[in-house]
Amino acid sequence: MSRTMSRKRGQVLRKLKKLGKQICSQIERGRFPQIEMASRSTDNIVYDPEHRQYVLGDRKVRRYAKNIRHLRPFTQMVWLAYFVKQLVELRKTVTLREVYYSARGDDVIQFADQQESDRIIVDLETLLEVPREDFHVFPEERSAIFGDLTIEYTVPGYEGKRINLTFHPDGMMIGPALMNAEFVRTSADKVIVIEKGAMFTRLIEEEAHRKFNAILIHTAGQPPRATRYLIRRLNQELGLPVYLFTDADPWGMHIAMVIISGSANAAHIRGLTTPDARWVGVWATDILEYKLPSERLTDRDVKRLYELSRDPRYKGEPWTREIKTFLKIRRKAEQEAFARYGLAYIVDEYLPKKLEEAESE
Amino acid sequence: MSRTMSRKRGQVLRKLKKLGKQICSQIERGRFPQIEMASRSTDNIVYDPEHRQYVLGDRKVRRYAKNIRHLRPFTQMVWLAYFVKQLVELRKTVTLREVYYSARGDDVIQFADQQESDRIIVDLETLLEVPREDFHVFPEERSAIFGDLTIEYTVPGYEGKRINLTFHPDGMMIGPALMNAEFVRTSADKVIVIEKGAMFTRLIEEEAHRKFNAILIHTAGQPPRATRYLIRRLNQELGLPVYLFTDADPWGMHIAMVIISGSANAAHIRGLTTPDARWVGVWATDILEYKLPSERLTDRDVKRLYELSRDPRYKGEPWTREIKTFLKIRRKAEQEAFARYGLAYIVDEYLPKKLEEAESE
Repeated sequence: MSRTMSRKRGQVLRKLKKLGKQICSQIERGRFPQIEMASRSTDNIVYDPEHRQYVLGDRKVRRYAKNIRHLRPFTQMVWLAYFVKQLVELRKTVTLREVYYSARGDDVIQFADQQESDRIIVDLETLLEVPREDFHVFPEERSAIFGDLTIEYTVPGYEGKRINLTFHPDGMMIGPALMNAEFVRTSADKVIVIEKGAMFTRLIEEEAHRKFNAILIHTAGQPPRATRYLIRRLNQELGLPVYLFTDADPWGMHIAMVIISGSANAAHIRGLTTPDARWVGVWATDILEYKLPSERLTDRDVKRLYELSRDPRYKGEPWTREIKTFLKIRRKAEQEAFARYGLAYIVDEYLPKKLEEAESE
Repeated sequence: MSRTMSRKRGQVLRKLKKLGKQICSQIERGRFPQIEMASRSTDNIVYDPEHRQYVLGDRKVRRYAKNIRHLRPFTQMVWLAYFVKQLVELRKTVTLREVYYSARGDDVIQFADQQESDRIIVDLETLLEVPREDFHVFPEERSAIFGDLTIEYTVPGYEGKRINLTFHPDGMMIGPALMNAEFVRTSADKVIVIEKGAMFTRLIEEEAHRKFNAILIHTAGQPPRATRYLIRRLNQELGLPVYLFTDADPWGMHIAMVIISGSANAAHIRGLTTPDARWVGVWATDILEYKLPSERLTDRDVKRLYELSRDPRYKGEPWTREIKTFLKIRRKAEQEAFARYGLAYIVDEYLPKKLEEAESE
């Protein structure tokens, strides 16, 4: 097993054991056990300009077994810690939904619905200060990667096995195995992150990975955290600049922003953001400049743009200029809209210009 | 390039050229061009018990350039045929959405929206009698495969390259490249098709591919046609029996049925169904037998069950028994619900029993 992987496992197991000992020793001393963690209520989520992401403030919450209202979430969390410790030891992974069902096998523990078990999982993330992927709990979505990067697996049965990520021309799925693989070698000098599967396939077919010397990543919409984590690793471990390429609408813009600065939902977690990643398009101003086929913004789009304009992450350029332009032209466009100029246009014309602009800044 | 692939390409190109010549020769003879194809209206879609799938009846529709109401769809289809001929020649693929945008680049051709271009694509399928994948038009969804099957790629740049589908432990994406790959060698003696990504990952982690000597396929909900085509190929070219494993609800049941017997939407296409595939669960009767965590059927679920009970594909067992049971118990359950008995239960207990039952029938 690789060093990164075994360090992470060791760290999580130590934290879980410490939690268990803490609770046991409270009980042994005849006390009602309690735990304390950072509050995730809205007024304790603050934007940290230094780390360029949302973080939790100093306020704490307590779960106290003596308090009848705390008893349920307290017990649920202790069960969850017990359950994921087994996962990490056995080197298995589960989805959020499987956690919910696994609890139902135990007659003591109940979750009213998956929302409740999801919430307890976030509690445990907050308490341990690690993302749930580190204790082997994953969402169901998958995204994909393609490019000249050789990785070495660290999952059971595959330790030491290497594969180059150009091997499968449909793209390689980003799941637990790829997320935790070691980077062995790459000739790429940048990462291009793409919102849509169609555009990802387009770029592979047009050989964008060769033309731009790039690793291509498909986020499948708002990227799962495993993908955000992988993008960060490519940036930090390999020093590759990251360029983000989304639809020209508030939702695409926000996909880029979440990769750069994280989400308020993940304010309790570090290590998922890529503050130096650059959003290169498709911009509102590109709709005008490239005369892209476009659609009218819906009321929901407009409402979202006003929300974003008040968001501390959206200070500075290109964000304020693009929000203003969206609200002025009241139009949005998809990445695929460039197909009006032929299938190769995006690779031959648009992206070279955008990447050059971003590099020269 | 492989024989399968080059035969398919040759066939489609011949059909497209024939269409072009037919139209040109009508014009040269001073006539308004016209084309004729099978009608896809509901009353011309019939269930064919011999082929065990929906097919189109004998009624034809005509597109006649002299008729002002026909002029628009006629011209759109001629443009589409011209466009996909280039795709096939260049060995490129596009998505349905890219077809819509590509048309907008041409000032002559207009589609009001993607629904309109999608409809013309189905027209061309009907006229040529080939699925759109054969003229390189794909949807955006992806599903995945894992198991001991060595394939050889046939797409440009990868000809002759081989990979074993156990190589990537997150599963290999099923896109244009995998769909058209040649099968080189397998030790598997069956195919297990799984509705949910979580269950697919579970089966890989529990080594179900080794325990059952199986190729695992994840449909990602209702499977894209490329996946249905691949399942059929595994069944027909390699002679592997196919077992379908879905959620216990009308939607899961129908995923199985569409793999077996096709959909009314694809009545104009042959070559996508696997009539001998077997739906092995999760059944309504399993909810009772295994005391699965379950949820109440919604009104929409119940309505759907009554629709299915009148559907000619749902004659015989297990279909009628399971529909009756669903309506009696008014409950549904997900594949992940087995997690209540521990993560390995599905592989150690449930599936062996189900596969044995199916094989002994």
